[in-house]
Amino acid sequence: MDRKVGNIGSIDFSELKISKILEGMDATAFNARRLSHAAKLWREMVEGDYFIFLTLAGAMVPAGMRNVIAGMMEKDFISCLVTTGANVVHELIEALGIGHELGSERADDIKLANEEKNRIYDVFVSQKAFEEVENFLAPIISELEGNLSTPELMREIGKRIADEKSFLRIAYEKSIPVFCPTLHDSIFGLHLSIYRKKDFVVDFLKDINQILDLCFQKIPLGVVIVGGGVPKNFTLQAMLLAEGFDSAIQITTDSPQWGGLSGATLSEAKSWCKLKEEAKEVTVYCDATIALPILYAYLLEVS
Amino acid sequence: MDRKVGNIGSIDFSELKISKILEGMDATAFNARRLSHAAKLWREMVEGDYFIFLTLAGAMVPAGMRNVIAGMMEKDFISCLVTTGANVVHELIEALGIGHELGSERADDIKLANEEKNRIYDVFVSQKAFEEVENFLAPIISELEGNLSTPELMREIGKRIADEKSFLRIAYEKSIPVFCPTLHDSIFGLHLSIYRKKDFVVDFLKDINQILDLCFQKIPLGVVIVGGGVPKNFTLQAMLLAEGFDSAIQITTDSPQWGGLSGATLSEAKSWCKLKEEAKEVTVYCDATIALPILYAYLLEVS
Amino acid sequence: MDRKVGNIGSIDFSELKISKILEGMDATAFNARRLSHAAKLWREMVEGDYFIFLTLAGAMVPAGMRNVIAGMMEKDFISCLVTTGANVVHELIEALGIGHELGSERADDIKLANEEKNRIYDVFVSQKAFEEVENFLAPIISELEGNLSTPELMREIGKRIADEKSFLRIAYEKSIPVFCPTLHDSIFGLHLSIYRKKDFVVDFLKDINQILDLCFQKIPLGVVIVGGGVPKNFTLQAMLLAEGFDSAIQITTDSPQWGGLSGATLSEAKSWCKLKEEAKEVTVYCDATIALPILYAYLLEVS
Amino acid sequence: MDRKVGNIGSIDFSELKISKILEGMDATAFNARRLSHAAKLWREMVEGDYFIFLTLAGAMVPAGMRNVIAGMMEKDFISCLVTTGANVVHELIEALGIGHELGSERADDIKLANEEKNRIYDVFVSQKAFEEVENFLAPIISELEGNLSTPELMREIGKRIADEKSFLRIAYEKSIPVFCPTLHDSIFGLHLSIYRKKDFVVDFLKDINQILDLCFQKIPLGVVIVGGGVPKNFTLQAMLLAEGFDSAIQITTDSPQWGGLSGATLSEAKSWCKLKEEAKEVTVYCDATIALPILYAYLLEVS
Repeated sequence: MDRKVGNIGSIDFSELKISKILEGMDATAFNARRLSHAAKLWREMVEGDYFIFLTLAGAMVPAGMRNVIAGMMEKDFISCLVTTGANVVHELIEALGIGHELGSERADDIKLANEEKNRIYDVFVSQKAFEEVENFLAPIISELEGNLSTPELMREIGKRIADEKSFLRIAYEKSIPVFCPTLHDSIFGLHLSIYRKKDFVVDFLKDINQILDLCFQKIPLGVVIVGGGVPKNFTLQAMLLAEGFDSAIQITTDSPQWGGLSGATLSEAKSWCKLKEEAKEVTVYCDATIALPILYAYLLEVS
Repeated sequence: MDRKVGNIGSIDFSELKISKILEGMDATAFNARRLSHAAKLWREMVEGDYFIFLTLAGAMVPAGMRNVIAGMMEKDFISCLVTTGANVVHELIEALGIGHELGSERADDIKLANEEKNRIYDVFVSQKAFEEVENFLAPIISELEGNLSTPELMREIGKRIADEKSFLRIAYEKSIPVFCPTLHDSIFGLHLSIYRKKDFVVDFLKDINQILDLCFQKIPLGVVIVGGGVPKNFTLQAMLLAEGFDSAIQITTDSPQWGGLSGATLSEAKSWCKLKEEAKEVTVYCDATIALPILYAYLLEVS
Repeated sequence: MDRKVGNIGSIDFSELKISKILEGMDATAFNARRLSHAAKLWREMVEGDYFIFLTLAGAMVPAGMRNVIAGMMEKDFISCLVTTGANVVHELIEALGIGHELGSERADDIKLANEEKNRIYDVFVSQKAFEEVENFLAPIISELEGNLSTPELMREIGKRIADEKSFLRIAYEKSIPVFCPTLHDSIFGLHLSIYRKKDFVVDFLKDINQILDLCFQKIPLGVVIVGGGVPKNFTLQAMLLAEGFDSAIQITTDSPQWGGLSGATLSEAKSWCKLKEEAKEVTVYCDATIALPILYAYLLEVS
Repeated sequence: MDRKVGNIGSIDFSELKISKILEGMDATAFNARRLSHAAKLWREMVEGDYFIFLTLAGAMVPAGMRNVIAGMMEKDFISCLVTTGANVVHELIEALGIGHELGSERADDIKLANEEKNRIYDVFVSQKAFEEVENFLAPIISELEGNLSTPELMREIGKRIADEKSFLRIAYEKSIPVFCPTLHDSIFGLHLSIYRKKDFVVDFLKDINQILDLCFQKIPLGVVIVGGGVPKNFTLQAMLLAEGFDSAIQITTDSPQWGGLSGATLSEAKSWCKLKEEAKEVTVYCDATIALPILYAYLLEVS
């Protein structure tokens, strides 16, 4: 390109490759530039053998992102997953072969209620799906005992899943820890409260010790934050006791000016020492259903 | 007013009363009309002796909203609080007399880190504050035993707080349950993981049973949702097993089109039967630091 | 209050006055603090005899804000209005006694189309309303001649309006200039293109000279920006040739991170010298239907 | 895929082609699904020989999107451009070889002002750039005469631009109309107000007649709306007198719940008959700097 160094340029479309387009966005602005920086930073983390936490809030599994998560585990683009109870439950719904329906956000919710369909924006999930999850989980919960952290519990679940495409199974097979600090805030939690035996405890405080161990590893530590919430806070907070992340990517549709943690900038996280002073960080303001598959495709293409 | 019934009108400013202005917003549109509907719906809940859940996410205590929450408890505008670990920790910081600093979102975060100040958008909180919280909590945690739900734990904390303005103390005195399903996702959680003795368990699953008991009460049930997150989901989800809320108000700055739970409409909640079919519901898209004090002042004025 | 100076405090609800509550928000955070600063800054402008531009985008008239605008003119809270063609057209619909309907954003738009009702979020306006506007405007447009700027044209309209509550009439009576740089981008514009005679020109470039004259006044200059768009840009841009505003308030629901002008910070405006270096400025992220009436009530109460 | 028809599926990453990934997003949800629908709808418009309006607000040229716009003209992905004065001015800055600088949204705006750099979020543009634009425009404006609509004026500019990559020049060469209904709301407008001779009029009302002619064409009419503002309103409004668009795509970061036109749904536009009842329409909530290049790459790949 003949543009001056340091000047806005343009994306080169002569070769229609995802990596070319993403890298070309580096010369643009706003969230395209941020997306480009995120791609390069994630690649740097992968190539630099970082231990990479993925924090995942939002209904990413109902939204068709399960194979992206599974693929990231298989390809070692992430080393650890911190997610919500909802994503675990919906993963089970997929793994059990029931799945979610292409719906519409303009649907009549009363009619849906009468048809026993639950709506997640433009996705429907049948009441029956949750019954199947209950049928699957009830005997497992009944047979478990001892004091399990959520990553330990997720291993127990993962090893009992037949579907080879399930990221819970893949995590089990690859010994990738899956934290679920809000497991009780899900249908899974309701079932736990119903079916657990006296000698079985889900020990959420044990999660803290286990994530701290991961944060104390003497290797570069990175984090990819999708969508805020407890997964973001829980993971960043662990670093209050450790030295801070070396690199951080945030993908969010929330905004800083409302003052909430989900929209908080990564710069703010530096004031808390959750990130190291010199940590590279970039926030991409974009729906994760768009940004995540593109970043994943990029990593596949360049690796 | 001489406007036709069913027509857009205008607010009457001849008498400068909060209630007049809020009620006048009923004849306007967009979020002013929604705020007016929320005011009237909350009033209806209070006058109808509803059991009212307040779900409170976001850094409402650092943002100066503690006396609003405390006042709502004292005046019986709410019957139960479901909030985050962060709001509990920051309440302790206030109750212990340390407080938060008026800061700026344009501050230099590296400099703040070096001064041991942590930033929450335009609020600063000193590292020392967390040490004081630790000094307060450590002996309490060490002396507790048994299997406590978070409302039970919050009672133990509340009764040990000297500050009469603390909503945790007021909740204790008035036997208002305070659920904190993400207590482990906070500094409090870190301290729990460090100081708890073997025979003390924070049993988050017990919370589910206790909130279910509240949802099964045979009285009208209302919910005021501030800011999404686990407090919203945990409270609405309990209704999956009960009959659904009779009335619901949501105050949020999130949007439906991102597909997340925090921005989900209350209509969507009806498809899940978390709200009754005929439930009255209104969402106000507004920063809660503006909407909550105004609604509180309204309720004070008309009660 | 016994809080430390510089600390987050709380709103005093012991006296339920709008001014007390707004001023109390100064000790809070996020957008409540911003709203409080906006109130005080506007008051300072009024008491300091600033020439105050109000730039008004968004469907504020259909949303029931016309008496707020009219009142601000009558009370000298604003000295000049820069608005959209749409707000002028909808003001005519109100002034002609037709008005707008309380509607719903969940309405069936195809059904509305068949009923000849047009929807503006949760407001309906009948097709007939626009016919009445045409009946009113056609003869006026036909009789006008010469080269009129939009403020000159607005004067011609204002003096022909019978409704004493119309802000166009009040502006005419009080010689308050009303700029409408996007008048052609409205139904009014369509009528102009149909009914104008050869010797009548709406000279939008003349607007520039006239707003420049206002910007060159040797008195303190303030601006209150509601909702971005051309009204914001047109007014700020005039200052590129003058010395910059002394004070600025922005009320918006847009965000900076999308890179657009409507969401741009007032700090960014300083890089362009649209605001003076030392100008006081505050942005309130809030629906203007909520913020404007509250600020107006505040100004009424303290003046 | 073995998923049930009508079920959420997943993107196939086995072949890393933009078209495959975009088409795969059809089986996901939220804005990925919307982006996929937009891609297919735009393709349908191109293959169906629609006359396609592109309405372009936002600082797309400073953000590095000029070659996307130029390419869309060259490839006949659009038939007409409706944009802002700002995008025209910034296009001139690029076409004159001055360009824009890669900046940062965290820059010190006072310092920038002193360095005579103006900030557009994370892009800087030097004061000097505007002087060059003035040097280029002043003699052109001085020599023009008659009553020109903005598309006629844009032709005069386009034919005087040497840079072959300029979309104004390409538009001139390909006789693609470029409407600029807010030309006066830009630096170009300031120059027009200074340098125009008596016998030269920019007749914005003539624009209305010319866009109406395009709307009355008896061929399928499509519109791609990027970012709201006057370009959106001006183009949709023209259809009030014609039959409505056959297809519409909207790319926006604004939200419906604030009640403004920029965030208004395309369904709302149907109530106004700006779109035909049966018109296909999709809104993608995404920063256009991300969505536009991806959609453009998709169209290149499939055409």
